[in-house]
Parts: sequence; C-alpha cells; structure tokens
Amino acid sequence: MARVDHKLDLSVDGGTLTAALVDIASVSGEEQPLADAIERALTAEPHLTVHRDGNTVIARTNLARAERVILAGHIDTVPHAGNYPSSLSADRARLLGCGTSDMKSGVAVQLRLAHEVARPARDVTYVFYDCEEVAAERNGLLRLARNAPGLLSGDFAVLLEPSGGVVEGGCQGTLRVAVRAAGARAHTARSWMGDNAIHKAGAILDVLRGYTPREPVVDGLRYHEGLNAVAISGGVATNVVPDGCEVQVNYRFAPDLSPEQAIAHVRDLFSGFELEVLDVASGARPGLDAPVAGAFAAAVGGTPRPKLGWTDVARFAELGIPAVNYGPGISEIAHTAGEYVELAAITEAETRLRSWLEG
Amino acid sequence: MARVDHKLDLSVDGGTLTAALVDIASVSGEEQPLADAIERALTAEPHLTVHRDGNTVIARTNLARAERVILAGHIDTVPHAGNYPSSLSADRARLLGCGTSDMKSGVAVQLRLAHEVARPARDVTYVFYDCEEVAAERNGLLRLARNAPGLLSGDFAVLLEPSGGVVEGGCQGTLRVAVRAAGARAHTARSWMGDNAIHKAGAILDVLRGYTPREPVVDGLRYHEGLNAVAISGGVATNVVPDGCEVQVNYRFAPDLSPEQAIAHVRDLFSGFELEVLDVASGARPGLDAPVAGAFAAAVGGTPRPKLGWTDVARFAELGIPAVNYGPGISEIAHTAGEYVELAAITEAETRLRSWLEG
Repeated sequence: MARVDHKLDLSVDGGTLTAALVDIASVSGEEQPLADAIERALTAEPHLTVHRDGNTVIARTNLARAERVILAGHIDTVPHAGNYPSSLSADRARLLGCGTSDMKSGVAVQLRLAHEVARPARDVTYVFYDCEEVAAERNGLLRLARNAPGLLSGDFAVLLEPSGGVVEGGCQGTLRVAVRAAGARAHTARSWMGDNAIHKAGAILDVLRGYTPREPVVDGLRYHEGLNAVAISGGVATNVVPDGCEVQVNYRFAPDLSPEQAIAHVRDLFSGFELEVLDVASGARPGLDAPVAGAFAAAVGGTPRPKLGWTDVARFAELGIPAVNYGPGISEIAHTAGEYVELAAITEAETRLRSWLEG
Repeated sequence: MARVDHKLDLSVDGGTLTAALVDIASVSGEEQPLADAIERALTAEPHLTVHRDGNTVIARTNLARAERVILAGHIDTVPHAGNYPSSLSADRARLLGCGTSDMKSGVAVQLRLAHEVARPARDVTYVFYDCEEVAAERNGLLRLARNAPGLLSGDFAVLLEPSGGVVEGGCQGTLRVAVRAAGARAHTARSWMGDNAIHKAGAILDVLRGYTPREPVVDGLRYHEGLNAVAISGGVATNVVPDGCEVQVNYRFAPDLSPEQAIAHVRDLFSGFELEVLDVASGARPGLDAPVAGAFAAAVGGTPRPKLGWTDVARFAELGIPAVNYGPGISEIAHTAGEYVELAAITEAETRLRSWLEG
C-alpha cells in the first residue's frame, strides 16, 4: 500500500476534525499514520515543543507557569465493526463510526486546544498515546512513564476518555483471581469412589450468588463494586469424576481499597479454596478534594460522578498526579457497531476546557 | 518393519498362552498380527469353522446342539504404559503387563476352550473382536452385528471381560447431557447491568450436590447409580459478565430404566434449564433369571454381582441375547501401568467354563 501523508487541519471545528481523525484508521498497533499526522500538525505550532516516543506524541507549552496540567488521550481504536469511515447522521447532529466516542472526539478537543490556546494560564502537556485498547504491557502511556517520566510531570491530569461531558473521578481497581476446588478422580460408573470437584465448586458459586457488593462513598463520590465469575472450567473426560475445577473471579473494587486489601477480602471470601492472584490493577481515588482538581471541576461545571471502569487515571495516580476523566464521548456505546458522538458535545467540551486553561 | 507370522500354541497352559498373547502387541487399530495368529491357530482345529471380519475372528462348533452359547472377548488393548512385554512376578504367581487383565487372559481362556473342548454339550461361538477400547463406532462387535448378524446368533453370551472370576450381570446405562444456564453480558465494571450465567449455573450444581443416587435391585442384583458433572465451561472475556455456562452431566443408570426413562428423569431434575442429550447407551438387565443364564451361574459358582460400568453385554442385550461378564482379570487395575493377572485365576476360569461347556 502506498504511504499516505495525511494532513490534519487544526483550524476546523471539533466535529470536522473528529471525522478527519476517525478516517485515519488507527486500530491498536497500527497508529503510525495517525501519530505521524498529529506530530506534523503540532510541530507547526510555534508555541509547542513536540516529542515522540514510538507512536506516542507529546506536545508542551513552556511558559514557566506555576502549574502544569496534562491533557491525555489514546489515539488507537478497537477493530472496526463495519463502522469505518465516519458518517454523519441524517440530522447532522451526530458523527458515527469507530472511535467517534472512544476517543477521537476527545483527541480532537486536545488538538483544537493545542492549536487555539497559545498562552494558557497553566502550562499544558498534551499526550497522544498508542495501544490503550490492548494488553497493558503495550500501553503507550506506561511506556512513556518508563522511557521519559519527566515528560509526564504535572500537577493534574485530565484524560479525555468518553465521560458524557461530565467529570468522572478516580476509577475502580480490578482484581482477577483463580479459585480452585480439588477432588479425586474416579470412573463415573463408580462415582462414589471419587470426589467431584465441579460439584464442590458449587460452594464457590454460592459465595458469588450470595455476595452483596459494597457501594462506598470515596471523596464524595459513590462507587459500586462487583464480584463476578468471568470463567469456569473443569473436566477430565466424559466418563471420569473430575478432580479439579477452576473459577476465575473478577473483583472490581472501589478506590478506598488498596490492591492488597482487595486481595485480602477475596481470600477471606474463598477461604478453604486454593486461590491464585492472576492480575490486579489499583484504583484511583477521585482526588476532587485537591485544590487543582476542585478548580477544574468548578470550571467545567456539572456534578462529578465516579468512574466505575478502570482507566489510565490509575497510572497518573501511581505517578502521584491527581487525574479525572472528562470527554465528549459516551462510554456506554464505546466498542459497539453503533458508536457515535454528539457534535454539540465536542464543542461544549472544547469551550469549557478552553475557559479553564485560559482562566 | 518385517512382517512376523506369530505362531500360537494352544496346547500350553492358560498363563503361558496369556503371556504369548500379551507379547503380540495389539493396541486398538493395530490388531492385525494378533488377529492373523488367532485365525491361523483356530483354522488348524478340525472341529471349528472359522470366519473373519476385518480384524475380528469368529470360530464355531457345528454339532447341532439344542443351545448355542457365545464366548466373546476383545483382542485390543489400551496403549502400553511401560508395561510391555509381559513379565512374571518374583513369586511366579502373577503375570504383569498391558492387557494381562483387560483382557488377554480372558482371550487365552477362550482359545484354550476352543482347542480343548472338541465336543461341547452346547454349541459354542467364539468371538475375538477388535477396537473395544476406542470410540463405539469402531467396535468390532458392533461391526460384526451389522455385517454378519447370523454369526452372532445364540442363546446366551459370556464376555470374558475382567470380573475377578465372579459373574457380573447386566450393565448400567450411560447418558450424557449438556445443561445450560443463560444470562446477559455486561462489562464487569457495571455488572448489575448483566446477568451472570456462571452464577446461575450454581443452581445446576445445587441439583447435583443434593442428589441421592438410586440403588435399585434388578433381577436380584443391586445396582448403584451416579449423577455427575463431568465438564463445565463458561466465560467470554476476563472483563465481561458471561451470558452462558454449560455443565455436562453423566448419568449412569441402572438397567431397570430405558434410555428414554433416563432422559426423562434428567430433564425433570434440570427443568428450567436448556438441556441437550449428547449421547446415551442403554443398560442391560442381568437376565440371570433366564434358565440358560441360571445354569451358567450355577456351573461357575460364586455369588453374581452387578456390573456398574458399561460393557458390550449391552450389545448382546440389544440383539436379544442374555449376556454376562465372567473373566479371570481384575477390572480395577485395567488400564494402569501396574496391570496384572493371577495365573491361578486363569486356570480356574478355564476349568469352570470347561465343565459348563461339557456338562
């Protein structure tokens, strides 16, 4: 395929820019054409210093302001679902297509601000990163934090993930464990000689069926936990009483618990069974009580709500940077064939963020 | 590999003949050398008419007796487990090796009787068949029943499967079903939007955990049923509330139930769940109340017991021929690396069957 050097015009309105971004395909791992286009467009802005790390692009103002804030967004999408390229709805109110909500509309807002706000009241670091939609070890933000942590220094971060134009604070942590029941094999013709591990796993499911998730209030936001089997497997052969059964359990925990506390809670629930921690990611407290975050929430308005899913705000939390989600997309329709974004929401997010940056 | 024409000497004692049979490897699908050797040895007996169907060999007396009985055994073994060729125990009481119990000692008894009993009181059909240890559709007895059912006509059948020298009557049937729980997917971060099918499958396991198997007496023998999960699977992705979970259940049912009754019973137990019948094989009543079977049991002595596993006696039952298991091997150690047979048990089975055939 011939190489196309896409040109992005940052002076157009946010909806038009979103469509241009959507139409440069960037499924995870294939972000280079879009990263190149973003890098070229930002390099043309005299008030920005541009850096590149793989397919992650960083652009910074350098005004020696008292505060530095980060506006970050991923440029990759999930694979297309028959919804590429973008299209406008009949009433021209919505832009449809893969990545419209998650999160090229957010990226468009970042690019519009980078272009328009030459002298912000707070120094700004714009981060456009790759591989958010795939395994954590490929995440461009994680790689940048390792390769050039200085580029990620700041006092506050906004991730432009789809949040319906509302500030979503913090994020829940996620823990996945394998809980295993053990038994003894026997021929099913003489099953009383054995001990059926799948039957014993019924007690694991009992715990899950009887569990009432917590809904704690953390820094003023009410979270909603969940404890769910996400996989179950067991069986040796069709005529054998099985000696093993494994249930994978996913615990989504509110950010008032550390990963260690979440693990202890789950171990307590399934005491009596072998338990292995498969993976864990800490949550992030909303941090809206920090002055810099409070100023942001006040500037963009609305009532902040908790973020239940895990997002990269947790990476900023690990770097000691308070972070929130705020973007024009709609998270509930992300990754669906019917994904869209309201054009008015793009304009509104841009307007509110601009007033905050300039204010 | 050069073709070896093995020669079997049927005049030696049963233990020696068993060793010779074990040492002609005949893992399922590779029975030809052994079938050839058996065919040659039996063709040399003037009182027998010999037939061949694939690697199944049939030899019949033709004395126009009032009754015809069938002595049947499979000549294949499971794959070797470091226990080939055969060896004698230090005290020379046991023969060790793959197939010693299951069931070349039984085949040796068949061959000894075919050689020694030239003028039985009952006409005898000796069947040596292939592929019993593998999928049912490859079974040589099933193939023979389709290709030449006349060769399997008879009034009573003895399968020389390992039964510890005790008459084992009938066999239990076996039914395997898939029981499925259905739910609704959701992201685990918002799990209350979904309906976890693995959690719902807990109710399937409840049925299994709370089930008390029947132990009915059929034709004087007490059977022992079993209802067991033999496999379980479910799960979509590690962050998705799963919308499906399947439990495979194996019901071993006593021969007082038909396959249709067994299916109805299981459907009743799991009403409320989708259920699919995966496979079913009917059991066989012991039939020891039939005069011909009673005479056999009286002649060989001992207290008959029920056969809990499924064996080819069910195939004879389907052909309308009462059948029992009676052989010198030990079923509990079949298919193990430590498989052996007591030499004295071979002699005893031969002696008892000979007195029955001649009596």
